[in-house]
Amino acid sequence: MRCLDPVKVIEVSDATDERLADYVRLRDVNLRKSLEAEHGLFMAEGEKVIRRALQAGYRPRSFLLTERRREALADVMEGLAAPVYVVSEDVAHRLVGFDLHRGALASFHRRPLPTVEQVIADARSVVVLEDIVDHTNVGAIFRSAAGLGVDAVVLAPRCADPLYRRSIKVSMGAVFTLPYARLDDWYAGLGELSRLGFRLLAMTPAPGSVPIAEALAGTGARDRNALLMGTEGDGLSSRWMEQADVCVRVPMVDRDVDSLNVTAAAAIACYELVRGRVEDRAAG
Amino acid sequence: MRCLDPVKVIEVSDATDERLADYVRLRDVNLRKSLEAEHGLFMAEGEKVIRRALQAGYRPRSFLLTERRREALADVMEGLAAPVYVVSEDVAHRLVGFDLHRGALASFHRRPLPTVEQVIADARSVVVLEDIVDHTNVGAIFRSAAGLGVDAVVLAPRCADPLYRRSIKVSMGAVFTLPYARLDDWYAGLGELSRLGFRLLAMTPAPGSVPIAEALAGTGARDRNALLMGTEGDGLSSRWMEQADVCVRVPMVDRDVDSLNVTAAAAIACYELVRGRVEDRAAG
Repeated sequence: MRCLDPVKVIEVSDATDERLADYVRLRDVNLRKSLEAEHGLFMAEGEKVIRRALQAGYRPRSFLLTERRREALADVMEGLAAPVYVVSEDVAHRLVGFDLHRGALASFHRRPLPTVEQVIADARSVVVLEDIVDHTNVGAIFRSAAGLGVDAVVLAPRCADPLYRRSIKVSMGAVFTLPYARLDDWYAGLGELSRLGFRLLAMTPAPGSVPIAEALAGTGARDRNALLMGTEGDGLSSRWMEQADVCVRVPMVDRDVDSLNVTAAAAIACYELVRGRVEDRAAG
Repeated sequence: MRCLDPVKVIEVSDATDERLADYVRLRDVNLRKSLEAEHGLFMAEGEKVIRRALQAGYRPRSFLLTERRREALADVMEGLAAPVYVVSEDVAHRLVGFDLHRGALASFHRRPLPTVEQVIADARSVVVLEDIVDHTNVGAIFRSAAGLGVDAVVLAPRCADPLYRRSIKVSMGAVFTLPYARLDDWYAGLGELSRLGFRLLAMTPAPGSVPIAEALAGTGARDRNALLMGTEGDGLSSRWMEQADVCVRVPMVDRDVDSLNVTAAAAIACYELVRGRVEDRAAG
Protein backbone atom coordinates (compact mmCIF):
# COMPACT_ATOMS: atom_id res chain seq x y z
CA MET A 1 0.00 0.00 0.00
CA ARG A 2 1.30 3.42 -0.94
CA CYS A 3 1.31 6.19 1.59
CA LEU A 4 0.12 9.66 0.85
CA ASP A 5 2.46 12.57 0.55
CA PRO A 6 2.45 13.79 4.14
CA VAL A 7 2.35 17.48 3.21
CA LYS A 8 -1.07 17.11 1.62
CA VAL A 9 -2.69 15.21 4.47
CA ILE A 10 -4.26 17.47 7.04
CA GLU A 11 -5.93 16.10 10.13
CA VAL A 12 -8.85 18.26 11.17
CA SER A 13 -10.68 17.80 14.44
CA ASP A 14 -13.17 20.66 14.26
CA ALA A 15 -16.28 20.14 12.15
CA THR A 16 -16.67 23.90 11.77
CA ASP A 17 -13.16 24.36 10.35
CA GLU A 18 -13.44 26.66 7.32
CA ARG A 19 -11.32 24.34 5.22
CA LEU A 20 -14.13 21.78 5.39
CA ALA A 21 -16.77 24.23 4.17
CA ASP A 22 -17.34 22.36 0.88
CA TYR A 23 -18.69 19.41 2.85
CA VAL A 24 -21.29 20.92 5.16
CA ARG A 25 -24.79 19.50 5.54
CA LEU A 26 -24.89 17.28 2.50
CA ARG A 27 -28.56 16.44 2.96
CA ASP A 28 -29.71 20.04 3.02
CA VAL A 29 -30.74 20.31 -0.62
CA ASN A 30 -31.36 24.04 -0.68
CA LEU A 31 -28.13 24.88 1.08
CA ARG A 32 -26.18 22.56 -1.17
CA LYS A 33 -27.69 23.95 -4.35
CA SER A 34 -26.66 27.49 -3.50
CA LEU A 35 -23.28 26.50 -2.05
CA GLU A 36 -22.37 24.36 -5.04
CA ALA A 37 -23.53 26.97 -7.55
CA GLU A 38 -21.67 29.75 -5.76
CA HIS A 39 -18.39 27.88 -5.63
CA GLY A 40 -18.78 25.95 -8.86
CA LEU A 41 -18.23 22.63 -7.17
CA PHE A 42 -19.82 19.22 -6.97
CA MET A 43 -19.54 16.45 -4.44
CA ALA A 44 -18.59 12.85 -5.19
CA GLU A 45 -19.20 10.16 -2.59
CA GLY A 46 -17.55 6.78 -2.33
CA GLU A 47 -14.32 5.54 -3.81
CA LYS A 48 -15.72 4.17 -7.03
CA VAL A 49 -17.49 7.37 -7.96
CA ILE A 50 -14.50 9.53 -6.97
CA ARG A 51 -12.25 7.43 -9.19
CA ARG A 52 -14.64 7.84 -12.06
CA ALA A 53 -14.71 11.62 -11.65
CA LEU A 54 -10.90 11.67 -11.72
CA GLN A 55 -10.82 9.39 -14.76
CA ALA A 56 -13.21 11.72 -16.51
CA GLY A 57 -10.72 14.54 -15.94
CA TYR A 58 -12.53 16.51 -13.25
CA ARG A 59 -10.14 18.48 -11.05
CA PRO A 60 -10.49 17.91 -7.29
CA ARG A 61 -10.67 20.82 -4.85
CA SER A 62 -10.09 18.55 -1.86
CA PHE A 63 -10.75 15.12 -0.41
CA LEU A 64 -12.35 14.20 2.88
CA LEU A 65 -11.51 10.80 4.33
CA THR A 66 -12.38 9.23 7.63
CA GLU A 67 -9.48 7.91 9.68
CA ARG A 68 -10.21 4.31 8.83
CA ARG A 69 -10.22 5.06 5.09
CA ARG A 70 -7.30 7.47 5.07
CA GLU A 71 -5.33 5.41 2.54
CA ALA A 72 -8.36 4.62 0.41
CA LEU A 73 -7.45 6.66 -2.64
CA ALA A 74 -3.70 6.89 -2.19
CA ASP A 75 -3.00 5.38 -5.62
CA VAL A 76 -4.89 8.09 -7.50
CA MET A 77 -3.81 11.01 -5.36
CA GLU A 78 -0.22 11.08 -6.43
CA GLY A 79 0.45 14.14 -8.47
CA LEU A 80 -2.75 15.87 -7.40
CA ALA A 81 -2.37 19.15 -5.57
CA ALA A 82 -5.66 18.96 -3.71
CA PRO A 83 -5.46 18.69 0.08
CA VAL A 84 -6.67 15.54 1.82
CA TYR A 85 -8.56 16.22 5.01
CA VAL A 86 -8.69 13.35 7.46
CA VAL A 87 -11.35 13.45 10.14
CA SER A 88 -12.78 11.14 12.78
CA GLU A 89 -16.13 9.52 12.03
CA ASP A 90 -17.66 11.72 14.64
CA VAL A 91 -16.40 14.93 13.03
CA ALA A 92 -17.52 13.60 9.65
CA HIS A 93 -21.00 13.01 11.00
CA ARG A 94 -21.24 16.47 12.51
CA LEU A 95 -19.93 18.03 9.31
CA VAL A 96 -22.00 16.27 6.63
CA GLY A 97 -25.02 15.41 8.76
CA PHE A 98 -25.02 11.61 8.56
CA ASP A 99 -22.74 8.62 9.06
CA LEU A 100 -20.17 8.54 6.33
CA HIS A 101 -20.19 4.77 5.93
CA ARG A 102 -18.23 4.86 2.71
CA GLY A 103 -15.61 6.99 4.37
CA ALA A 104 -14.66 9.02 1.30
CA LEU A 105 -15.88 12.26 -0.21
CA ALA A 106 -14.31 14.58 -2.72
CA SER A 107 -15.15 18.06 -3.81
CA PHE A 108 -14.53 18.74 -7.50
CA HIS A 109 -14.46 21.82 -9.67
CA ARG A 110 -17.28 21.92 -12.17
CA ARG A 111 -16.40 22.55 -15.79
CA PRO A 112 -18.32 24.80 -18.13
CA LEU A 113 -20.95 22.67 -19.83
CA PRO A 114 -20.61 22.19 -23.57
CA THR A 115 -23.27 23.81 -25.74
CA VAL A 116 -26.24 21.84 -26.98
CA GLU A 117 -24.82 22.15 -30.48
CA GLN A 118 -21.58 20.55 -29.35
CA VAL A 119 -23.12 17.55 -27.62
CA ILE A 120 -25.52 16.73 -30.42
CA ALA A 121 -23.14 17.43 -33.31
CA ASP A 122 -22.23 13.78 -33.84
CA ALA A 123 -25.10 12.20 -31.93
CA ARG A 124 -27.78 10.04 -33.44
CA SER A 125 -29.75 9.18 -30.31
CA VAL A 126 -30.42 11.87 -27.75
CA VAL A 127 -32.56 11.94 -24.61
CA VAL A 128 -34.08 15.32 -23.75
CA LEU A 129 -35.31 15.78 -20.17
CA GLU A 130 -37.86 18.46 -19.42
CA ASP A 131 -37.93 19.42 -15.76
CA ILE A 132 -37.30 16.07 -14.09
CA VAL A 133 -37.42 17.11 -10.44
CA ASP A 134 -35.91 14.16 -8.60
CA HIS A 135 -32.14 13.69 -8.51
CA THR A 136 -32.56 9.94 -8.17
CA ASN A 137 -34.51 9.84 -11.41
CA VAL A 138 -31.97 11.99 -13.25
CA GLY A 139 -29.18 9.70 -12.07
CA ALA A 140 -31.07 6.53 -13.00
CA ILE A 141 -31.89 7.86 -16.47
CA PHE A 142 -28.23 8.75 -17.08
CA ARG A 143 -27.17 5.29 -15.96
CA SER A 144 -29.58 3.55 -18.32
CA ALA A 145 -28.90 5.93 -21.20
CA ALA A 146 -25.13 5.51 -20.87
CA GLY A 147 -25.30 1.76 -20.42
CA LEU A 148 -27.60 1.23 -23.38
CA GLY A 149 -25.63 3.50 -25.69
CA VAL A 150 -27.54 6.76 -26.02
CA ASP A 151 -25.14 9.40 -27.37
CA ALA A 152 -26.08 12.50 -25.38
CA VAL A 153 -28.54 14.07 -23.00
CA VAL A 154 -30.04 17.54 -23.31
CA LEU A 155 -31.67 19.14 -20.25
CA ALA A 156 -34.39 21.76 -20.09
CA PRO A 157 -33.36 24.84 -18.10
CA ARG A 158 -35.15 23.65 -14.96
CA CYS A 159 -34.25 19.97 -15.00
CA ALA A 160 -32.54 18.71 -11.82
CA ASP A 161 -28.74 18.79 -11.75
CA PRO A 162 -26.88 15.66 -12.91
CA LEU A 163 -23.90 16.70 -10.78
CA TYR A 164 -25.84 16.80 -7.55
CA ARG A 165 -24.43 14.20 -5.13
CA ARG A 166 -27.49 11.96 -5.29
CA SER A 167 -27.69 12.04 -9.10
CA ILE A 168 -24.02 11.13 -9.37
CA LYS A 169 -24.36 8.27 -6.92
CA VAL A 170 -27.43 6.72 -8.54
CA SER A 171 -25.87 7.12 -11.99
CA MET A 172 -22.77 5.24 -10.77
CA GLY A 173 -20.74 8.00 -12.39
CA ALA A 174 -22.49 7.84 -15.78
CA VAL A 175 -23.05 11.60 -15.48
CA PHE A 176 -19.28 11.98 -15.96
CA THR A 177 -19.08 10.05 -19.20
CA LEU A 178 -22.32 10.64 -21.04
CA PRO A 179 -22.11 14.08 -22.71
CA TYR A 180 -24.87 16.47 -21.75
CA ALA A 181 -25.79 20.12 -22.15
CA ARG A 182 -28.50 22.41 -20.93
CA LEU A 183 -30.87 24.46 -23.07
CA ASP A 184 -30.87 28.20 -22.33
CA ASP A 185 -34.29 28.61 -23.76
CA TRP A 186 -37.11 26.32 -22.79
CA TYR A 187 -39.64 27.79 -25.21
CA ALA A 188 -37.70 27.62 -28.45
CA GLY A 189 -34.88 25.29 -27.45
CA LEU A 190 -36.11 22.22 -29.29
CA GLY A 191 -35.83 24.14 -32.56
CA GLU A 192 -32.11 23.48 -32.69
CA LEU A 193 -32.64 19.73 -32.53
CA SER A 194 -35.17 19.91 -35.35
CA ARG A 195 -32.91 22.07 -37.48
CA LEU A 196 -30.16 19.51 -37.13
CA GLY A 197 -32.44 16.81 -38.41
CA PHE A 198 -33.53 15.15 -35.20
CA ARG A 199 -36.97 13.63 -35.16
CA LEU A 200 -38.59 14.59 -31.87
CA LEU A 201 -40.38 11.72 -30.11
CA ALA A 202 -42.50 12.82 -27.15
CA MET A 203 -43.03 10.17 -24.47
CA THR A 204 -46.62 10.27 -23.25
CA PRO A 205 -49.26 7.71 -22.34
CA ALA A 206 -51.87 10.01 -23.93
CA PRO A 207 -54.34 8.59 -26.45
CA GLY A 208 -53.01 8.84 -29.96
CA SER A 209 -49.45 8.04 -29.00
CA VAL A 210 -47.95 5.10 -30.85
CA PRO A 211 -45.91 2.27 -29.38
CA ILE A 212 -42.31 3.41 -29.39
CA ALA A 213 -41.08 0.35 -31.28
CA GLU A 214 -43.52 1.16 -34.06
CA ALA A 215 -42.41 4.79 -34.21
CA LEU A 216 -38.80 3.71 -34.50
CA ALA A 217 -39.33 0.84 -36.95
CA GLY A 218 -37.27 1.37 -40.05
CA THR A 219 -34.87 3.75 -38.36
CA GLY A 220 -31.69 3.66 -40.40
CA ALA A 221 -28.14 3.91 -39.19
CA ARG A 222 -27.97 7.62 -40.01
CA ASP A 223 -31.34 8.68 -38.66
CA ARG A 224 -31.35 11.05 -35.72
CA ASN A 225 -33.89 10.62 -32.97
CA ALA A 226 -34.46 12.67 -29.83
CA LEU A 227 -36.63 11.22 -27.10
CA LEU A 228 -38.40 13.86 -25.00
CA MET A 229 -39.35 12.92 -21.45
CA GLY A 230 -41.31 15.15 -19.09
CA THR A 231 -41.54 15.78 -15.41
CA GLU A 232 -42.61 13.08 -12.96
CA GLY A 233 -46.38 13.02 -12.69
CA ASP A 234 -47.42 15.64 -15.21
CA GLY A 235 -45.21 14.61 -18.09
CA LEU A 236 -44.24 16.90 -20.97
CA SER A 237 -45.51 20.46 -21.27
CA SER A 238 -48.01 21.16 -24.01
CA ARG A 239 -45.46 23.46 -25.64
CA TRP A 240 -43.01 20.59 -26.08
CA MET A 241 -45.71 18.13 -27.11
CA GLU A 242 -46.79 20.47 -29.89
CA GLN A 243 -43.29 20.64 -31.28
CA ALA A 244 -42.83 16.86 -31.33
CA ASP A 245 -42.94 14.95 -34.58
CA VAL A 246 -44.61 11.95 -33.00
CA CYS A 247 -46.03 10.99 -29.60
CA VAL A 248 -44.79 7.63 -28.37
CA ARG A 249 -45.57 5.34 -25.46
CA VAL A 250 -44.55 2.08 -23.90
CA PRO A 251 -47.47 -0.30 -24.47
CA MET A 252 -49.23 -1.07 -21.20
CA VAL A 253 -51.97 -3.46 -20.23
CA ASP A 254 -55.01 -2.26 -18.42
CA ARG A 255 -54.40 -3.08 -14.80
CA ASP A 256 -54.54 -0.91 -11.72
CA VAL A 257 -51.15 0.54 -12.49
CA ASP A 258 -51.25 4.19 -13.52
CA SER A 259 -48.11 4.12 -15.53
CA LEU A 260 -44.55 2.96 -15.37
CA ASN A 261 -42.29 5.03 -13.20
CA VAL A 262 -40.13 7.43 -15.13
CA THR A 263 -36.93 5.42 -14.78
CA ALA A 264 -38.57 2.20 -15.98
CA ALA A 265 -40.16 4.03 -18.91
CA ALA A 266 -36.83 5.71 -19.69
CA ALA A 267 -34.98 2.39 -19.64
CA ILE A 268 -37.40 0.84 -22.12
CA ALA A 269 -37.44 3.92 -24.33
CA CYS A 270 -33.63 4.17 -24.42
CA TYR A 271 -33.46 0.48 -25.18
CA GLU A 272 -35.69 0.99 -28.22
CA LEU A 273 -33.87 4.16 -29.23
CA VAL A 274 -30.55 2.39 -29.63
CA ARG A 275 -31.79 -1.10 -30.42
CA GLY A 276 -30.85 -1.27 -34.08
CA ARG A 277 -27.46 0.28 -33.45
CA VAL A 278 -26.43 -2.04 -30.65
CA GLU A 279 -27.44 -5.03 -32.74
CA ASP A 280 -25.40 -3.65 -35.65
CA ARG A 281 -22.42 -3.31 -33.39
CA ALA A 282 -22.75 -6.83 -32.02
CA ALA A 283 -23.07 -8.18 -35.55
CA GLY A 284 -20.14 -6.08 -36.79
CA MET B 1 -68.62 14.93 2.30
CA ARG B 2 -69.79 11.89 4.21
CA CYS B 3 -69.05 11.58 7.87
CA LEU B 4 -67.75 8.46 9.47
CA ASP B 5 -69.90 6.32 11.71
CA PRO B 6 -69.06 7.87 15.07
CA VAL B 7 -68.86 4.55 16.92
CA LYS B 8 -65.88 3.46 14.84
CA VAL B 9 -63.87 6.65 15.22
CA ILE B 10 -61.63 6.65 18.24
CA GLU B 11 -59.47 9.60 19.13
CA VAL B 12 -56.23 8.51 20.74
CA SER B 13 -53.82 10.92 22.36
CA ASP B 14 -51.20 8.52 23.67
CA ALA B 15 -48.63 7.19 21.20
CA THR B 16 -48.03 4.17 23.44
CA ASP B 17 -51.73 3.14 23.46
CA GLU B 18 -51.90 -0.60 22.85
CA ARG B 19 -54.56 -0.17 20.20
CA LEU B 20 -51.98 1.56 18.00
CA ALA B 21 -49.48 -1.27 18.30
CA ASP B 22 -49.75 -2.19 14.60
CA TYR B 23 -48.25 1.18 13.69
CA VAL B 24 -45.13 1.44 15.82
CA ARG B 25 -41.76 2.46 14.39
CA LEU B 26 -42.47 1.98 10.72
CA ARG B 27 -38.85 2.60 9.72
CA ASP B 28 -37.44 -0.08 12.00
CA VAL B 29 -37.16 -2.83 9.40
CA ASN B 30 -36.25 -5.64 11.79
CA LEU B 31 -38.96 -4.78 14.27
CA ARG B 32 -41.53 -4.45 11.48
CA LYS B 33 -40.60 -7.77 9.91
CA SER B 34 -41.14 -9.68 13.13
CA LEU B 35 -44.21 -7.69 14.17
CA GLU B 36 -45.89 -8.10 10.79
CA ALA B 37 -45.08 -11.80 10.58
CA GLU B 38 -46.30 -12.45 14.11
CA HIS B 39 -49.63 -10.72 13.60
CA GLY B 40 -50.07 -11.56 9.92
CA LEU B 41 -50.51 -7.96 8.95
CA PHE B 42 -49.19 -5.48 6.45
CA MET B 43 -49.16 -1.72 6.38
CA ALA B 44 -50.55 0.46 3.59
CA GLU B 45 -49.63 4.15 3.45
CA GLY B 46 -51.47 6.91 1.68
CA GLU B 47 -55.04 7.09 0.43
CA LYS B 48 -54.42 5.76 -3.04
CA VAL B 49 -52.62 2.65 -1.87
CA ILE B 50 -55.16 2.00 0.90
CA ARG B 51 -57.99 2.20 -1.62
CA ARG B 52 -56.21 -0.27 -3.84
CA ALA B 53 -55.76 -2.73 -0.98
CA LEU B 54 -59.48 -2.49 -0.23
CA GLN B 55 -60.36 -2.91 -3.91
CA ALA B 56 -58.21 -6.00 -4.02
CA GLY B 57 -60.29 -7.43 -1.19
CA TYR B 58 -57.82 -7.18 1.66
CA ARG B 59 -59.54 -6.91 5.05
CA PRO B 60 -58.47 -3.97 7.22
CA ARG B 61 -57.56 -4.43 10.88
CA SER B 62 -57.69 -0.68 11.56
CA PHE B 63 -57.03 2.73 10.09
CA LEU B 64 -54.86 5.52 11.44
CA LEU B 65 -55.65 9.04 10.31
CA THR B 66 -54.25 12.37 11.39
CA GLU B 67 -56.76 14.96 12.51
CA ARG B 68 -56.52 16.94 9.31
CA ARG B 69 -57.19 13.84 7.21
CA ARG B 70 -59.89 12.31 9.42
CA GLU B 71 -62.50 12.23 6.65
CA ALA B 72 -60.02 11.14 3.99
CA LEU B 73 -61.37 7.63 3.43
CA ALA B 74 -64.93 8.08 4.66
CA ASP B 75 -66.44 6.89 1.37
CA VAL B 76 -64.76 3.49 1.51
CA MET B 77 -65.12 2.91 5.22
CA GLU B 78 -68.85 2.41 5.27
CA GLY B 79 -69.69 -1.15 6.06
CA LEU B 80 -66.22 -1.92 7.34
CA ALA B 81 -65.94 -3.03 10.94
CA ALA B 82 -62.37 -1.88 11.44
CA PRO B 83 -61.79 0.92 13.94
CA VAL B 84 -60.50 4.29 12.78
CA TYR B 85 -57.93 5.82 15.09
CA VAL B 86 -57.56 9.55 14.83
CA VAL B 87 -54.41 11.10 16.25
CA SER B 88 -52.64 14.44 16.21
CA GLU B 89 -49.66 14.83 13.91
CA ASP B 90 -47.46 14.90 16.93
CA VAL B 91 -48.77 11.56 18.24
CA ALA B 92 -48.47 10.13 14.74
CA HIS B 93 -44.84 11.19 14.57
CA ARG B 94 -44.02 9.68 17.95
CA LEU B 95 -45.84 6.47 17.02
CA VAL B 96 -44.52 5.76 13.53
CA GLY B 97 -41.20 7.59 13.82
CA PHE B 98 -41.54 10.21 11.09
CA ASP B 99 -43.90 12.93 9.86
CA LEU B 100 -46.97 11.31 8.42
CA HIS B 101 -47.35 13.79 5.57
CA ARG B 102 -49.90 11.68 3.76
CA GLY B 103 -51.96 11.49 6.93
CA ALA B 104 -53.35 8.01 6.34
CA LEU B 105 -52.21 4.52 7.25
CA ALA B 106 -54.07 1.26 7.37
CA SER B 107 -53.20 -2.09 8.82
CA PHE B 108 -54.50 -5.05 6.82
CA HIS B 109 -54.76 -8.77 7.41
CA ARG B 110 -52.52 -10.79 5.15
CA ARG B 111 -54.07 -13.64 3.22
CA PRO B 112 -52.48 -17.03 2.73
CA LEU B 113 -50.43 -16.85 -0.47
CA PRO B 114 -51.56 -19.03 -3.34
CA THR B 115 -49.28 -21.89 -4.30
CA VAL B 116 -46.79 -21.56 -7.13
CA GLU B 117 -48.85 -24.06 -9.07
CA GLN B 118 -51.91 -21.86 -8.74
CA VAL B 119 -50.30 -18.63 -9.88
CA ILE B 120 -48.59 -20.14 -12.88
CA ALA B 121 -51.45 -22.43 -13.96
CA ASP B 122 -52.74 -20.07 -16.63
CA ALA B 123 -49.69 -17.86 -16.95
CA ARG B 124 -47.55 -17.53 -20.02
CA SER B 125 -45.07 -14.93 -18.81
CA VAL B 126 -43.66 -15.18 -15.31
CA VAL B 127 -40.94 -13.28 -13.49
CA VAL B 128 -39.00 -15.26 -10.89
CA LEU B 129 -37.04 -13.26 -8.32
CA GLU B 130 -34.18 -14.89 -6.49
CA ASP B 131 -33.30 -13.08 -3.27
CA ILE B 132 -33.84 -9.48 -4.25
CA VAL B 133 -32.91 -7.74 -1.00
CA ASP B 134 -34.24 -4.23 -1.41
CA HIS B 135 -37.94 -3.53 -0.91
CA THR B 136 -37.77 -0.60 -3.32
CA ASN B 137 -36.52 -2.90 -6.05
CA VAL B 138 -39.19 -5.51 -5.36
CA GLY B 139 -41.87 -2.82 -5.53
CA ALA B 140 -40.48 -1.30 -8.72
CA ILE B 141 -40.27 -4.70 -10.42
CA PHE B 142 -43.89 -5.47 -9.51
CA ARG B 143 -44.99 -2.10 -10.86
CA SER B 144 -43.25 -2.64 -14.20
CA ALA B 145 -44.31 -6.28 -14.47
CA ALA B 146 -47.95 -5.45 -13.76
CA GLY B 147 -48.01 -2.43 -16.04
CA LEU B 148 -46.40 -4.24 -18.93
CA GLY B 149 -48.59 -7.31 -18.62
CA VAL B 150 -46.55 -10.06 -17.01
CA ASP B 151 -48.95 -12.70 -15.67
CA ALA B 152 -47.38 -13.67 -12.35
CA VAL B 153 -44.36 -13.40 -10.09
CA VAL B 154 -42.68 -16.24 -8.25
CA LEU B 155 -40.35 -15.47 -5.35
CA ALA B 156 -37.45 -17.47 -3.99
CA PRO B 157 -37.80 -18.27 -0.29
CA ARG B 158 -35.52 -15.42 0.77
CA CYS B 159 -36.69 -12.69 -1.61
CA ALA B 160 -37.82 -9.48 0.11
CA ASP B 161 -41.51 -9.16 0.99
CA PRO B 162 -43.82 -7.50 -1.60
CA LEU B 163 -46.22 -6.58 1.22
CA TYR B 164 -43.64 -4.62 3.15
CA ARG B 165 -44.72 -0.95 3.37
CA ARG B 166 -41.95 0.32 1.12
CA SER B 167 -42.54 -2.36 -1.54
CA ILE B 168 -46.25 -1.59 -1.62
CA LYS B 169 -45.65 2.14 -1.93
CA VAL B 170 -43.11 1.90 -4.74
CA SER B 171 -45.30 -0.62 -6.57
CA MET B 172 -48.23 1.84 -6.39
CA GLY B 173 -50.30 -1.11 -5.21
CA ALA B 174 -49.31 -3.44 -8.05
CA VAL B 175 -48.41 -6.02 -5.39
CA PHE B 176 -52.15 -6.32 -4.69
CA THR B 177 -53.16 -7.10 -8.25
CA LEU B 178 -50.32 -9.06 -9.78
CA PRO B 179 -50.58 -12.66 -8.58
CA TYR B 180 -47.51 -13.99 -6.83
CA ALA B 181 -46.39 -16.98 -4.84
CA ARG B 182 -43.30 -18.04 -2.95
CA LEU B 183 -41.26 -21.18 -3.54
CA ASP B 184 -40.81 -23.39 -0.47
CA ASP B 185 -37.73 -24.95 -1.88
CA TRP B 186 -34.96 -22.86 -3.33
CA TYR B 187 -32.87 -25.79 -4.53
CA ALA B 188 -35.43 -27.70 -6.52
CA GLY B 189 -38.17 -25.11 -6.85
CA LEU B 190 -37.60 -24.23 -10.48
CA GLY B 191 -38.38 -27.82 -11.41
CA GLU B 192 -42.09 -27.14 -11.21
CA LEU B 193 -41.84 -24.34 -13.76
CA SER B 194 -39.92 -26.59 -16.12
CA ARG B 195 -42.39 -29.45 -15.70
CA LEU B 196 -45.22 -27.11 -16.64
CA GLY B 197 -43.47 -26.22 -19.86
CA PHE B 198 -41.87 -22.92 -18.94
CA ARG B 199 -38.63 -22.07 -20.64
CA LEU B 200 -36.30 -20.64 -18.01
CA LEU B 201 -34.44 -17.51 -19.09
CA ALA B 202 -31.68 -16.45 -16.69
CA MET B 203 -30.83 -12.74 -16.72
CA THR B 204 -27.09 -12.27 -16.52
CA PRO B 205 -24.52 -10.01 -18.16
CA ALA B 206 -22.11 -12.97 -18.23
CA PRO B 207 -20.32 -13.86 -21.46
CA GLY B 208 -22.32 -16.34 -23.48
CA SER B 209 -25.65 -14.81 -22.66
CA VAL B 210 -27.74 -13.82 -25.66
CA PRO B 211 -29.68 -10.59 -26.16
CA ILE B 212 -33.09 -11.13 -24.65
CA ALA B 213 -34.92 -10.10 -27.82
CA GLU B 214 -33.02 -12.78 -29.70
CA ALA B 215 -33.84 -15.43 -27.10
CA LEU B 216 -37.53 -14.54 -27.32
CA ALA B 217 -37.73 -14.18 -31.11
CA GLY B 218 -40.33 -16.50 -32.51
CA THR B 219 -42.14 -16.91 -29.21
CA GLY B 220 -45.65 -17.97 -30.06
CA ALA B 221 -48.86 -17.03 -28.30
CA ARG B 222 -48.88 -20.27 -26.32
CA ASP B 223 -45.25 -20.40 -25.34
CA ARG B 224 -44.44 -20.11 -21.68
CA ASN B 225 -41.44 -18.11 -20.53
CA ALA B 226 -40.09 -17.52 -17.06
CA LEU B 227 -37.55 -14.78 -16.57
CA LEU B 228 -35.17 -15.40 -13.65
CA MET B 229 -33.60 -12.38 -11.98
CA GLY B 230 -31.04 -12.56 -9.20
CA THR B 231 -30.01 -10.51 -6.24
CA GLU B 232 -28.67 -6.98 -6.57
CA GLY B 233 -24.94 -7.04 -7.20
CA ASP B 234 -24.24 -10.75 -7.37
CA GLY B 235 -27.07 -11.80 -9.65
CA LEU B 236 -28.41 -15.33 -9.91
CA SER B 237 -26.94 -18.23 -7.96
CA SER B 238 -24.99 -20.81 -9.88
CA ARG B 239 -27.62 -23.39 -8.95
CA TRP B 240 -30.34 -21.42 -10.73
CA MET B 241 -28.12 -20.53 -13.69
CA GLU B 242 -27.43 -24.22 -14.25
CA GLN B 243 -31.11 -24.99 -14.42
CA ALA B 244 -31.88 -22.25 -16.93
CA ASP B 245 -32.58 -23.10 -20.55
CA VAL B 246 -30.87 -19.98 -21.81
CA CYS B 247 -28.88 -17.09 -20.38
CA VAL B 248 -30.11 -13.71 -21.56
CA ARG B 249 -28.94 -10.12 -21.23
CA VAL B 250 -29.88 -6.61 -22.15
CA PRO B 251 -27.36 -5.51 -24.78
CA MET B 252 -25.04 -2.86 -23.37
CA VAL B 253 -22.37 -0.68 -24.88
CA ASP B 254 -18.93 -0.55 -23.42
CA ARG B 255 -18.85 2.57 -21.27
CA ASP B 256 -17.93 3.08 -17.67
CA VAL B 257 -21.29 1.77 -16.53
CA ASP B 258 -21.10 -1.60 -14.79
CA SER B 259 -24.58 -2.66 -15.61
CA LEU B 260 -28.11 -1.42 -15.57
CA ASN B 261 -29.70 -1.26 -12.18
CA VAL B 262 -32.00 -4.15 -11.45
CA THR B 263 -35.21 -2.20 -11.93
CA ALA B 264 -34.12 -0.80 -15.29
CA ALA B 265 -33.01 -4.25 -16.43
CA ALA B 266 -36.28 -5.75 -15.17
CA ALA B 267 -38.35 -3.15 -17.02
CA ILE B 268 -36.61 -3.90 -20.30
CA ALA B 269 -36.77 -7.65 -19.77
CA CYS B 270 -40.49 -7.59 -18.89
CA TYR B 271 -41.11 -5.41 -21.91
CA GLU B 272 -39.50 -8.03 -24.13
CA LEU B 273 -41.22 -10.88 -22.31
CA VAL B 274 -44.69 -9.60 -23.14
CA ARG B 275 -43.93 -7.70 -26.30
CA GLY B 276 -45.57 -10.02 -28.81
CA ARG B 277 -48.64 -10.42 -26.65
CA VAL B 278 -49.28 -6.75 -26.05
CA GLU B 279 -48.94 -6.09 -29.75
CA ASP B 280 -51.39 -8.93 -30.43
CA ARG B 281 -53.82 -7.36 -28.03
CA ALA B 282 -53.49 -3.90 -29.54
CA ALA B 283 -53.99 -5.34 -33.03
CA GLY B 284 -56.95 -7.42 -31.92
